[in-house]
Amino acid sequence: MVRAPWQSPGAPAPSDAGRSEPAGVPVEPGTVRIAVDLLGGDDAPAVVVDGALRAVRADPHLHLLLVGPAAVAGEVIRALDPVERTRVAVRPVDAVVGMADHPSAARADSTVRAAVQAVRAGAADALLSAGSTGATVTAAALGLGRWPDVRHPALVATLPAVGGPVVLLDVGGSLESRPMNLARHAVLGAAYASVAHGITAPRVGLLSVGTEPGKGDRARRLADPLLAAAVLPHGGRYVGLVEGYDVSLGARADVVVTDGFTGNVLLKAIEGAYAMAGGAPAGGGAPRAAALLGVAGTVVVCHGAARAGDVASGIALAAHLWRRRAADLVRALLAGADAPDLENRTDRTTDTEVPTS
Amino acid sequence: MVRAPWQSPGAPAPSDAGRSEPAGVPVEPGTVRIAVDLLGGDDAPAVVVDGALRAVRADPHLHLLLVGPAAVAGEVIRALDPVERTRVAVRPVDAVVGMADHPSAARADSTVRAAVQAVRAGAADALLSAGSTGATVTAAALGLGRWPDVRHPALVATLPAVGGPVVLLDVGGSLESRPMNLARHAVLGAAYASVAHGITAPRVGLLSVGTEPGKGDRARRLADPLLAAAVLPHGGRYVGLVEGYDVSLGARADVVVTDGFTGNVLLKAIEGAYAMAGGAPAGGGAPRAAALLGVAGTVVVCHGAARAGDVASGIALAAHLWRRRAADLVRALLAGADAPDLENRTDRTTDTEVPTS
Repeated sequence: MVRAPWQSPGAPAPSDAGRSEPAGVPVEPGTVRIAVDLLGGDDAPAVVVDGALRAVRADPHLHLLLVGPAAVAGEVIRALDPVERTRVAVRPVDAVVGMADHPSAARADSTVRAAVQAVRAGAADALLSAGSTGATVTAAALGLGRWPDVRHPALVATLPAVGGPVVLLDVGGSLESRPMNLARHAVLGAAYASVAHGITAPRVGLLSVGTEPGKGDRARRLADPLLAAAVLPHGGRYVGLVEGYDVSLGARADVVVTDGFTGNVLLKAIEGAYAMAGGAPAGGGAPRAAALLGVAGTVVVCHGAARAGDVASGIALAAHLWRRRAADLVRALLAGADAPDLENRTDRTTDTEVPTS
Repeated sequence: MVRAPWQSPGAPAPSDAGRSEPAGVPVEPGTVRIAVDLLGGDDAPAVVVDGALRAVRADPHLHLLLVGPAAVAGEVIRALDPVERTRVAVRPVDAVVGMADHPSAARADSTVRAAVQAVRAGAADALLSAGSTGATVTAAALGLGRWPDVRHPALVATLPAVGGPVVLLDVGGSLESRPMNLARHAVLGAAYASVAHGITAPRVGLLSVGTEPGKGDRARRLADPLLAAAVLPHGGRYVGLVEGYDVSLGARADVVVTDGFTGNVLLKAIEGAYAMAGGAPAGGGAPRAAALLGVAGTVVVCHGAARAGDVASGIALAAHLWRRRAADLVRALLAGADAPDLENRTDRTTDTEVPTS
């Protein structure tokens, strides 16, 4: 077996029994094909190459479609075992979207747009990019189409919290705080919490500067009654205003709704606080991968400063969401369909997580 | 000597040599009189009574004007040594502003308005309240007057960061994100960093979702060139856009400017992250006291959930700011006056911090 450079000689060889589980996302069975934007990210392609290798080795049912320069894709393939190479395909593309480019500047032949096209054409089930968030959101919305009742797709991140995972949205899909957006995203967040994390009857809170009714800026004061009136899927209920603490405490809400500007800043502030506190908690640090909800497909965005482990986590998250049919189920919940039998889904998944060594 | 309930029998008696230094604010010489709102805060009056006692014992030059019910003030006085009691005066007031009340609902006879009046009338040098932030800001702006060129006063908090303290503003003085506000607050923040913390040539960043020019929502995109064109006091310079990480890392900026909604949410999110990480870092946790800049007086606001230690820190901060003539100096810097000789002030203060036991 060829050993990847980050494996120490004494490390166990990848196998079903020794599966790594990046960022707490368990490996689930079922073949899934992820299109990976090789050129997206501050430290691309190096970290994307490393991340792709980690992901392939961690999940024996994972296939990758590497979208980018053939030479870069070749680095991934050469580092793999011959048997693993059968799970990797290449779509050669050379143009990248810069982090400073305007989102709509993504050229038709850019890696992120080619990855979107691969999903649209059925050559891949989902896509991951660590490139410019704005460009990925724009390319996905244009290439895959938006859900008819979601004007502004949301980026959804799941954070470890004292009381269990907390779903935070929007963390950068759209940056302006519009009350109707906040209300729509509350529904999306509740659906995502139930579908992606098996949280039943999710408690949904609106992030503000105090918990008393009326606290907050104009957008929050207008959104509060809209959220109170919203019908939340899967038994979700609106618990009112929550505060910054609640994102990491998780005692008051399972889903915290905010605008993409505040959510993005908040997520990075929590990551910075962990650094100041001496490191991320044992339960995992702030996530560097987020799911895009509101487009007709499974799209995961990694932070531009993503490292190899973050890219691997992002690929695993995309696989997890596709295997759970998360995009379809969230879409169905949003359209008022019956809630799927999530408890059974969760149980079945949990069984497969236990390695029988 | 009467022992306060939180002192264990073996603890050293309060003295100059054994001074506590709440929240890293050193005790400086010079008599200072702080008006304390006894009824402000979720857990008032108990935590305010405890906080006031701690503050009096920690700083032998501190005098308090207790504003609230005579019975509550009596609890403070009875717990003090007879010699310490000479440093405490009482202004009996019974009405409080509730956390859910509208800011302008603060009655003329409320504790916070009485505390503001005491400062205005010269009976106290500064005031502290852990009550509704909005009510305190409104009472201070109306009672003390705003600086003519600051339409929206800002709450300023100083956070411990990996690279040294970071001044964050606004953390809740005003909640809407207006580009002109952000530019004005950048000047206030630079002045505060130099006057209150002795930071020379402070680096000022505008909080956004990326560091590349053009990143952010509409308010940030409009504010960026305004900050770039602003003349920052005391050699301050605008370093452009910064991200959420930078608040706790401190590597890119000494002053981080944002709107009061985002700043408030951020500050509490960092506090929550510390809890998730297992506790605040050795350098101190997220502050629960913030200075109000833009009104003609020294005003410190504590978080509504403040504990006794937070109240004591807030009182110490108010004393520190008054001793440094911070409000006057920031006001002068804002008006374009010559920068004061801060280095000498810092040195002098540092000398007095060393106890000669």
